[in-house]
Amino acid sequence: MKGSENKMEIIRKVKEMQEISDRLRHEGKKIGFVPTMGYLHEGHLSLVRKARVLSDAVVVSIFVNPTQFGPGEDFERYPRDEEGDKAKLEAEDVDFLFIPEAGEMYPSGYQTHVEVTEVSKGLCGDFRPGHFRGVATVVAKLFNIVKPRVAVFGEKDYQQLLVIKRIVRDLNFDIEILSGTLIREEDGLAMSSRNAYLSPEGRQKALSLYRSLLKGKELYETGEKDASVLVKAVQKSVESTAGIVLQYVEIRDAETLDRIERVGKPSVIAVAALIDSVRLIDNMILGR
Amino acid sequence: MKGSENKMEIIRKVKEMQEISDRLRHEGKKIGFVPTMGYLHEGHLSLVRKARVLSDAVVVSIFVNPTQFGPGEDFERYPRDEEGDKAKLEAEDVDFLFIPEAGEMYPSGYQTHVEVTEVSKGLCGDFRPGHFRGVATVVAKLFNIVKPRVAVFGEKDYQQLLVIKRIVRDLNFDIEILSGTLIREEDGLAMSSRNAYLSPEGRQKALSLYRSLLKGKELYETGEKDASVLVKAVQKSVESTAGIVLQYVEIRDAETLDRIERVGKPSVIAVAALIDSVRLIDNMILGR
Repeated sequence: MKGSENKMEIIRKVKEMQEISDRLRHEGKKIGFVPTMGYLHEGHLSLVRKARVLSDAVVVSIFVNPTQFGPGEDFERYPRDEEGDKAKLEAEDVDFLFIPEAGEMYPSGYQTHVEVTEVSKGLCGDFRPGHFRGVATVVAKLFNIVKPRVAVFGEKDYQQLLVIKRIVRDLNFDIEILSGTLIREEDGLAMSSRNAYLSPEGRQKALSLYRSLLKGKELYETGEKDASVLVKAVQKSVESTAGIVLQYVEIRDAETLDRIERVGKPSVIAVAALIDSVRLIDNMILGR
Repeated sequence: MKGSENKMEIIRKVKEMQEISDRLRHEGKKIGFVPTMGYLHEGHLSLVRKARVLSDAVVVSIFVNPTQFGPGEDFERYPRDEEGDKAKLEAEDVDFLFIPEAGEMYPSGYQTHVEVTEVSKGLCGDFRPGHFRGVATVVAKLFNIVKPRVAVFGEKDYQQLLVIKRIVRDLNFDIEILSGTLIREEDGLAMSSRNAYLSPEGRQKALSLYRSLLKGKELYETGEKDASVLVKAVQKSVESTAGIVLQYVEIRDAETLDRIERVGKPSVIAVAALIDSVRLIDNMILGR
């Protein structure tokens, strides 16, 4: 608990986690939750710190969820470092680490899915069919297992954040969803567990995403409000770097993810690209 | 509460219901829940009594859920009797009646669905596309609103019962699902709010469903275990009554709803038919 000297407890079973959460809630303790796929970096830890200050008990989950990876994606080689993750979470004074096996989450006979229709469309939804269905389903499960009062998600996965806000609102989960801003390396690269896949050359190419978003943001801040002009400027900038396969650049309403023609309200400019077959995403908020 | 003299409280808002449920849980009270579409009969009340003996606080919901009715179905004319229902529930010592408007359950922008793939197939799933998706979604919502420890559903809607058991297991709802046996009128007709639609002549025709299931059950109990022979006997019996449009007769495993060829384990023989355009379902359990 906050300020206590307790060691972090490792929980691997759904039933045990639910019993602990029940006990905490019955004791009047506010549970803060940060779901992750592990291989933790400063982006994740910034979310854990946010949960820490807002909660009496912090639960982090590590689960590389197979159902949100498509065929041919990187589920098998997704980076894992359980011991390193544990040390990082203990240093952040996390109370419980929930780290189930896939068979514990999806036992034989499993057949239920949660789907958000509109917010899942476009952007990453077009390039990763079934991805957001997998995300929505596993997050609904984790919410029922951990029973938090507040859960924190990163703005790096911006569309995912809105999918989760939507299931919470639509399915009446009694949980407050908070977000943490995107955290970058010193050179500007958005932090991601997948950065581990990049060669030194790929790492240099990847910086083009940050530089191009920054160009879009600067153009916006010097007066350009036409979304298609901004998108084209970012596209042109990304494509000027050899060896990047651009998947999309889009500007959407930051709250609803609706397509927009002019940037009036806060908006998100989002990009996805392949660099040496490594899929990276990045975004910046305009007008916030 | 059990044995108290409190009047039943009527709750119409999601937030208010969640706050009451939180308070009850924090006080260590076990919440028992019976979701209904109202126009209550003895079948519903038998479920309420089951919840009453098992719980410290009983919540009943009445919500005619639009999303589980297909186009051309009877959503608009589904029978309603809020005052009569209230009196029946007060007499059963129910503590809270949750009775939201459709706009409270599905506000503008709603876009999330819960779907169970296998158990929703066949039987009523074939004749009411989208029905079980609507059921699974509204029940997931109600579970998050009422936060019960135990919920009771009728075996009359047998496929629905298994859909709900499946979402609870698959999405890790920490809720015990209990079932109540099908309740019949004195002449054997399965109780249903939709019986109110029947003319006196239709009412007589409808008895054929009970008589035919009984024939199947007798045949089974006198040694016939071949599912197709049992199904054919029931079909023939239903079709011998003029003015009944049979939708299906099927025998399925009572626990998994898997199709079976021989009745070994407990099985359900289920039937659906239209009588004067009124859709009725009925079932009997074999081998229990």
